[in-house]
Amino acid sequence: MEISKQIGEIKTKNNIEVEDEKVESDLRNSALKIADEIGMSSEFCGRLLNILLTESVRLQNVQQNDNEQRQTHLSIFMKAKQLQAMGKNVIHLEVGEPDYLPPKNVKIALGRIYDLQQYHYTETRGIPKLRQAIAKKVGNGITDEQVIVTPGGRFAVFSAIVSLVKSGDEVIYIEPAWPAYRECADFIGAKTKILKTTLKEKWNPDLKRLEEMINNNTKMIILNYPNNPTGKILNDNAMQRIMDVAKDYSLYVLSDEVYSDYSFNRFKSILEYGYDKSIMISSFSKGHAMTGFRVGYGISNKKIIAKMSAIQAVALTSVAEPMQYSALAAIDDNSLNENVKMMRRRLGFVCDKLQKMSLPFVAPDGALYVYPQLREGMDDDTVLINKLLDLGVAIAPGSGFGESYKRFIRISACQTEEVLEKGLEVLSSTL
Amino acid sequence: MEISKQIGEIKTKNNIEVEDEKVESDLRNSALKIADEIGMSSEFCGRLLNILLTESVRLQNVQQNDNEQRQTHLSIFMKAKQLQAMGKNVIHLEVGEPDYLPPKNVKIALGRIYDLQQYHYTETRGIPKLRQAIAKKVGNGITDEQVIVTPGGRFAVFSAIVSLVKSGDEVIYIEPAWPAYRECADFIGAKTKILKTTLKEKWNPDLKRLEEMINNNTKMIILNYPNNPTGKILNDNAMQRIMDVAKDYSLYVLSDEVYSDYSFNRFKSILEYGYDKSIMISSFSKGHAMTGFRVGYGISNKKIIAKMSAIQAVALTSVAEPMQYSALAAIDDNSLNENVKMMRRRLGFVCDKLQKMSLPFVAPDGALYVYPQLREGMDDDTVLINKLLDLGVAIAPGSGFGESYKRFIRISACQTEEVLEKGLEVLSSTL
Repeated sequence: MEISKQIGEIKTKNNIEVEDEKVESDLRNSALKIADEIGMSSEFCGRLLNILLTESVRLQNVQQNDNEQRQTHLSIFMKAKQLQAMGKNVIHLEVGEPDYLPPKNVKIALGRIYDLQQYHYTETRGIPKLRQAIAKKVGNGITDEQVIVTPGGRFAVFSAIVSLVKSGDEVIYIEPAWPAYRECADFIGAKTKILKTTLKEKWNPDLKRLEEMINNNTKMIILNYPNNPTGKILNDNAMQRIMDVAKDYSLYVLSDEVYSDYSFNRFKSILEYGYDKSIMISSFSKGHAMTGFRVGYGISNKKIIAKMSAIQAVALTSVAEPMQYSALAAIDDNSLNENVKMMRRRLGFVCDKLQKMSLPFVAPDGALYVYPQLREGMDDDTVLINKLLDLGVAIAPGSGFGESYKRFIRISACQTEEVLEKGLEVLSSTL
Repeated sequence: MEISKQIGEIKTKNNIEVEDEKVESDLRNSALKIADEIGMSSEFCGRLLNILLTESVRLQNVQQNDNEQRQTHLSIFMKAKQLQAMGKNVIHLEVGEPDYLPPKNVKIALGRIYDLQQYHYTETRGIPKLRQAIAKKVGNGITDEQVIVTPGGRFAVFSAIVSLVKSGDEVIYIEPAWPAYRECADFIGAKTKILKTTLKEKWNPDLKRLEEMINNNTKMIILNYPNNPTGKILNDNAMQRIMDVAKDYSLYVLSDEVYSDYSFNRFKSILEYGYDKSIMISSFSKGHAMTGFRVGYGISNKKIIAKMSAIQAVALTSVAEPMQYSALAAIDDNSLNENVKMMRRRLGFVCDKLQKMSLPFVAPDGALYVYPQLREGMDDDTVLINKLLDLGVAIAPGSGFGESYKRFIRISACQTEEVLEKGLEVLSSTL
């Protein structure tokens, strides 16, 4: 550990990246060779090596340790909230929290909770009525026994990763990405492998590279389409190839589809591929504008749902019953269609403005965001973001979705066009 | 691992207990001696040994692995709910869920949520108003920065254990106990050491024994007074001795005080002892009859609250805002006093009935339960509980609170005297 720290200091001083795939791969090969010689299971050997590598990388990241609070959309949101508490006006273009109202039925449901006494412990996996309604909504032959209701989509991600992945196992995800995947994997001590995508390649992942990243410690691939932050939707061909690879290596596939309501091009849920080891995650936060109700869900085979349910029982018994009934009241509401149309108009509006600023981007296929690149000569994301915050505009830094995306920012279209215009005006003049 | 399994089979066949403190202690001493000789940190050596011991114990528990679903108050509750869904009448004496209504102000708060738009992401640690109100309520100079609002007291327990204790660390708790403490410690791979108490000693822990259980891998002591399931409140003297020991060894003390509203004898919160490494946990579930709202809180120093908050951010972003405003509406309600008086009457009623059945018990100092012992010749708890469930009465098995309490049951007084009478009538005739 002491040596690792020293290596970290030398690497920092000489501007060498801490992680080196080639070195790790060589190390892995020689360790596996020894394991083979002494009759040790190669899977166990790989896990053990990964635990050591992860600890070593943590120690070598001197800079990151010094400045642990990496800026993300959430940290900017918290900062913006503090500024507001101090009396400052802030335009929120950093957070994926729709400005429109939840369905009217939710108001009626809330008004009835007390008299109907809908405020008790429920089954850990959620009230049967809500699970049945969710099963019906997602279709594909899913039954209520394959559904777990969670406090937000985030807890579904958390419980899936934490219950299916062990310390030293490997998880692959595609960047740029919502930071939660890495956070959950780090929490359980898993090794994360990142498949980076680029604006140049229109955010399409290199699937040959994906397959090369898999070894016998890989346990899970995480997908998120429509993507946060890029708005990308993968085409059926690419999805099919990923599912084939997952089947070949018997990997879990966690598909975070919280933005699927906002699909402007054809989107095919992972459930349509009928793969047994897949976990689909969604929530009421985005489509129904119900972020603060904290109701999400996970869908998988019964065995996986039982594992996620066990974690949920340990951590929080059950989801607040009043919030489950609020979600039930919202599920069939048709205000959703209007929300989706409006969001599409707004994203178009943002794209037009960004084009006028000559910032390169890929027009989103879905979700709530545009993820433009900063041009040469402009500030890096966090410098720019802090300047903007001083001017009363909160925007998410690109590097919050992956270290290598310092030259990007994420703009959320969860405001009226009037507000968007004001915020983008400030962005344009600052740039 | 293979050898461990074989040892487990032999132990099971010969009725030998899996865990043997003497053997573990000898093993620990010899390992520490080797560590000393080769210049390895004794703390690291102890952790490593504990990880191996925990895995070995898990593998040796053949029987437990065969029959993983130990009956607890929660599993009986879930069974009872299923029976009800099938049309059967069940009297619930198994669960700590008050039958009376939450404060009337909560109804008003729920009715306003929609129009006041109180349904957004909040600060991870909770809305400032609620944290301020909680700080004011608990007194002892606590400020809102020392408060975190959690989805139920359970998540406060989970986040405290998971953020302060590492795999291989040791946690001491006192049995009989709510199973959550062990579940959370198991989840993170900590070794649990159990200080057992007995009816004969009026559920007083042997504090000399407590001190002997501490070694340099011990990180936390968990307390729960008024106790679930016994209703015991520790006297000031005993609490002071525990705090002194904790200070001497610099241990965290997690004090779960969710039943403190229901104290019929003098109860002193851990906050009154002014120990920096203490974490007090409480909730709105019991005192305000708001179980299904899932709002609890943790109180500690700022550094510990920041750690718990980091876990909460990873797992669930923030607690549902409508539930936080409901709790805020309840916090100053004076219906609490009436609830406490009523609960005391009911517990007295249960005690009278148990006396008539000649079941030994200690009259509770607080909480919602009586924990009587079964007499010789009677069935063990789970056999009895299943008979009762067939007859439409749900009661919690004693062994749900610790393996060695098969000769106990827990009766919850969260029903009217009329219902309690009916349920206890069935218990009496079955016995």
